[in-house]
Amino acid sequence: MIIVMKVGASQAQVEHVTQKIEALGFKSHVIEGEERCVIGAIGHEKKKADLLALNSVPGVEAVIPISKPYKLASKELRKKPSIIKIHKNLSIGGDKIIIMAGPCSVESEEQILRTALAVKKAGGHMIRGGAFKPRTSPYSFQGLAEAGLKLLDKARQATGLPVVTEVMSQRDVELVERYADVVQVGARNIQNFSLLKELGKIKKPILLKRGMATTIQEWLMSAEYILSEGNPQVILCERGIRTFETATRNTLDLNAVPILKKESHLPIVVDPSHATGIRDIVIPMALAAVACGSDGIMLEIHPNPDQAWSDGMQSLTLEMFAEGMQQLRAVAKAVGRTL
Amino acid sequence: MIIVMKVGASQAQVEHVTQKIEALGFKSHVIEGEERCVIGAIGHEKKKADLLALNSVPGVEAVIPISKPYKLASKELRKKPSIIKIHKNLSIGGDKIIIMAGPCSVESEEQILRTALAVKKAGGHMIRGGAFKPRTSPYSFQGLAEAGLKLLDKARQATGLPVVTEVMSQRDVELVERYADVVQVGARNIQNFSLLKELGKIKKPILLKRGMATTIQEWLMSAEYILSEGNPQVILCERGIRTFETATRNTLDLNAVPILKKESHLPIVVDPSHATGIRDIVIPMALAAVACGSDGIMLEIHPNPDQAWSDGMQSLTLEMFAEGMQQLRAVAKAVGRTL
Amino acid sequence: MIIVMKVGASQAQVEHVTQKIEALGFKSHVIEGEERCVIGAIGHEKKKADLLALNSVPGVEAVIPISKPYKLASKELRKKPSIIKIHKNLSIGGDKIIIMAGPCSVESEEQILRTALAVKKAGGHMIRGGAFKPRTSPYSFQGLAEAGLKLLDKARQATGLPVVTEVMSQRDVELVERYADVVQVGARNIQNFSLLKELGKIKKPILLKRGMATTIQEWLMSAEYILSEGNPQVILCERGIRTFETATRNTLDLNAVPILKKESHLPIVVDPSHATGIRDIVIPMALAAVACGSDGIMLEIHPNPDQAWSDGMQSLTLEMFAEGMQQLRAVAKAVGRTL
Amino acid sequence: MIIVMKVGASQAQVEHVTQKIEALGFKSHVIEGEERCVIGAIGHEKKKADLLALNSVPGVEAVIPISKPYKLASKELRKKPSIIKIHKNLSIGGDKIIIMAGPCSVESEEQILRTALAVKKAGGHMIRGGAFKPRTSPYSFQGLAEAGLKLLDKARQATGLPVVTEVMSQRDVELVERYADVVQVGARNIQNFSLLKELGKIKKPILLKRGMATTIQEWLMSAEYILSEGNPQVILCERGIRTFETATRNTLDLNAVPILKKESHLPIVVDPSHATGIRDIVIPMALAAVACGSDGIMLEIHPNPDQAWSDGMQSLTLEMFAEGMQQLRAVAKAVGRTL
Repeated sequence: MIIVMKVGASQAQVEHVTQKIEALGFKSHVIEGEERCVIGAIGHEKKKADLLALNSVPGVEAVIPISKPYKLASKELRKKPSIIKIHKNLSIGGDKIIIMAGPCSVESEEQILRTALAVKKAGGHMIRGGAFKPRTSPYSFQGLAEAGLKLLDKARQATGLPVVTEVMSQRDVELVERYADVVQVGARNIQNFSLLKELGKIKKPILLKRGMATTIQEWLMSAEYILSEGNPQVILCERGIRTFETATRNTLDLNAVPILKKESHLPIVVDPSHATGIRDIVIPMALAAVACGSDGIMLEIHPNPDQAWSDGMQSLTLEMFAEGMQQLRAVAKAVGRTL
Repeated sequence: MIIVMKVGASQAQVEHVTQKIEALGFKSHVIEGEERCVIGAIGHEKKKADLLALNSVPGVEAVIPISKPYKLASKELRKKPSIIKIHKNLSIGGDKIIIMAGPCSVESEEQILRTALAVKKAGGHMIRGGAFKPRTSPYSFQGLAEAGLKLLDKARQATGLPVVTEVMSQRDVELVERYADVVQVGARNIQNFSLLKELGKIKKPILLKRGMATTIQEWLMSAEYILSEGNPQVILCERGIRTFETATRNTLDLNAVPILKKESHLPIVVDPSHATGIRDIVIPMALAAVACGSDGIMLEIHPNPDQAWSDGMQSLTLEMFAEGMQQLRAVAKAVGRTL
Repeated sequence: MIIVMKVGASQAQVEHVTQKIEALGFKSHVIEGEERCVIGAIGHEKKKADLLALNSVPGVEAVIPISKPYKLASKELRKKPSIIKIHKNLSIGGDKIIIMAGPCSVESEEQILRTALAVKKAGGHMIRGGAFKPRTSPYSFQGLAEAGLKLLDKARQATGLPVVTEVMSQRDVELVERYADVVQVGARNIQNFSLLKELGKIKKPILLKRGMATTIQEWLMSAEYILSEGNPQVILCERGIRTFETATRNTLDLNAVPILKKESHLPIVVDPSHATGIRDIVIPMALAAVACGSDGIMLEIHPNPDQAWSDGMQSLTLEMFAEGMQQLRAVAKAVGRTL
Repeated sequence: MIIVMKVGASQAQVEHVTQKIEALGFKSHVIEGEERCVIGAIGHEKKKADLLALNSVPGVEAVIPISKPYKLASKELRKKPSIIKIHKNLSIGGDKIIIMAGPCSVESEEQILRTALAVKKAGGHMIRGGAFKPRTSPYSFQGLAEAGLKLLDKARQATGLPVVTEVMSQRDVELVERYADVVQVGARNIQNFSLLKELGKIKKPILLKRGMATTIQEWLMSAEYILSEGNPQVILCERGIRTFETATRNTLDLNAVPILKKESHLPIVVDPSHATGIRDIVIPMALAAVACGSDGIMLEIHPNPDQAWSDGMQSLTLEMFAEGMQQLRAVAKAVGRTL
């Protein structure tokens, strides 16, 4: 921590601050500048949060943290990328880019099977589909719940492809864990810390979607909640942030992809369907995600998007998906990866 | 719903859309403009979400909702302000402005009792204090849990003032309901729909804090989750939104106060402590909140903010609080209210 | 400046950085922490920007500025509030709150005279009105230009009230200066540095509106452009920032008012008309602005808002204005000021 | 325009609105819904802005525009992409992706010549470099002005590559036009309408950078200012928007690329240097921009970024640039384009 004193802070104020720093068990180190004085506090990281309260001590202008608040998610701890095993023959975080596709909501056996077979045929690697749906309105379709999970299981059996699906509530963790190969945390639960802690205790990989107003640092802190409870299998998923722009549903923050590659060893997936909300631009943004280093792509696809029970506007048709897969393959190859 | 067709959409496309509208059980109504054609869909509100999928039908430019998605929270349903009873002699939503004050976290019996007595002495109406704390970092203090709730109960008994405290998890709803007079939902849980539904089934009033990236409309939709499960006692709390500005912890959106007064019958409280993050500007912003129509103010105060276990920077001293109460009284009077 | 080295930076890297710091004419000061090392650079403020380039030197994690980049606008330089003389008997920045009211655009002699007389009658202090209008669309009404300035002059003569009006272009500075008592810079020109420098050379006070995405620090830097060219008469005007919220035209950032009072000696005015875009909530937000310390309020009013050539939706009627003035007076008194 | 009446609006209010619509020269068309009534206003586009004032008429809930406010920039007017000629053998908007590279500021003959030759050698197509620099602080280096333009001219002569450089002021338009092949409008001048109109009268192509808080629609309206004055050669440049995220200088909004391809015929360039502010992630984001359909890339490069007079942190070295060109070529090919 660096404590910046005000211009004109008195000697007594500086001493008061150094005493406080030392009372908290840190060493203090004063630098006299031409205009003002700054004080370094040296000591154990875990207790550094205590120093933040110095902000309100007379004579103090600002308290500036130097260390990153996340540890287990950080590259400072683990330099090599984490490769997370999803299924016997499928991992994420290595050279191979993983494509997860499926409907927003599981609606019927016919719908999910038809979609799953199309995913397999086009060369996709995982099936996505929601059985518990977080909807802004209490009057919207909320998902088929366990019946939906059973349909996902049928789709898995029919194709051999693993399944990723969302859990919305602590109470459903055990249930969803039983059916899912990867358990998804939705954007709205990014700081539902009770849920995150619970997921830190299970054995399945977690796909952690960024919240609409979550900074990259906060996102890694949410990952840290899961990691620090003992589950090292966290996959991050960028799905767009909320900005002033209204031409798209969200603003896809692809900067986050190479930034996370610098800061963290965790794999990163991009969801261009939610990040755009507009079917026609989903594939271009998926291509961009692959080009800048994403380890996976999550896509909403539907056999008949005009009749989807949710998110029809942003769902690709099965044909668009198959064609998009060709383009994704070409861009993956151009950046030295496979798909 | 209004369906706007593209410039140059064909007659066949227009007919296709009207057929879809009618198949969904609505009447359609075509207006031919000079440049393009728009189609009104008339029918029952509840099914209107189905029409949104028309967005992806060929020839359609946009689908524009006309009705508001919230009903029970809306002034269209209930014109008079809701007055919510908190305690035998205390209600919110009428002429009297309610002041809720206390520490961010309950830390010790001495701390909470000393603070509670100061709240009472200065004329405050309720005690706030966190026993379950949503913290960005898993390494930060997470609250005293039930022990904290018991200390809040002691503070209530010592002062006769009712207590508002946060619940973070579905599993703790029963526990928190037992101790709290008003149950708070924090900003991070604004779209934790499982929790909201659970709170719709209890008998205590709910203080629903706005999320950092929640629009006013989404906030009312989250209130609707509680209301539609049968609990009509929802109090809204503006606590700042996330913007590009970094000089303050959040941006206090006071526009929301008169907007909510126009749109909803629910009472509204403002929390200038979290909305600013800076002790010196908390009282000015509390005065502003009263001036523009807030029904209550929630303040963080602490006997010794420099040693608070959380949020010390934004906590008022007990002396600042007592002095602020005088100013709040003057402004309340100036706008025709009491405190 | 504080230069934070990476965890694991080598001794050679630390030395390379200290050499660079010293080559730039600063003294360096190394603090060895438990995890990493930080280096203070001590020396003359003006050259500190040069140190920012260290950010890209091997081993450097971050370069953190300690000093504020604005000087003349800062309270570190001038502790007492600046009181700016607008007219022989009118100043801003003292106890008296200044009300500036008038139409968005000057439309006709009848309109501006009728409005100006209403401002005077209700106790307002200045007339506002646009002769050059920055409009998003090239097809919208762009203002009456010099003819509009002449009408403003008639309104001034008829009422004795001074006039504030916007300049949009360097080329019109001389013209607008001739007619205006206070020259306004609109939000869209907040970083039109050529215009700001020009206005630093004139003798009239400048009302500098915050841009839609301008931080408080950048806003003060734009003020610094004017101040550093020799014109000390800068009045800041908060008019709302752009956020994700769409229920209002902009989000009024009233936090900025007490923050600016802490950071700067310049007077601050609030414009709730542009900050809300909705007539019904303009007066509540004006009251809030007075309550939190604003030195002035700028309001759009119109004799017949439904027929205004621009911004009718947010303009008050003359009756609403007169009534609002009563309420403003009461709140001003409650916070110890006059109006 | 669609005028939405309030629930419970009286018949008299509906009639009053239809009369106003017709008085403005439009035909009105009333649709009675189950809950409320909406009114279509049919007529000439140019006068539609007049209808917005109906928003404040009693009984009206909202006025919703149907048509897009931009015409000349729109695909509704011109379906085929505009191909803009920059130089005798160089155009933008076709299959070939155009790379513009150079230093943030022109600093010296040695610097600009060395950089320009590196651009040419690596296969770049244009030289960028600032002679007039918009700087947040009045105390930062403001550019070499005409001396800088002369150095750019030398670089052009030495390489045969055309030059893009910024104009900040109406007064300098003639000067910059003389030296530049493409005239750049910076983000801060996106709504400097006086400057835009002036640039609508010149014969050189304009590179129009998006502002930090400019919506895609407003950006196209600013293009419309130039187009409507008679200069059809507008190139759009996405350079990042301002959001809550602080890990990067701005948030690159690549969604804008395919959205603009749907909405407009104008070519689009992406500047990942300003959009990220971090050297290490510039090339990944340039690859992403090419993958999603950008027609050009603008890059800051410098022979010695650690000693750059501005923006060193985000400048690529000449070696990084040459290597990045190889990668860009591969991705361009993967999406069926050349470079």
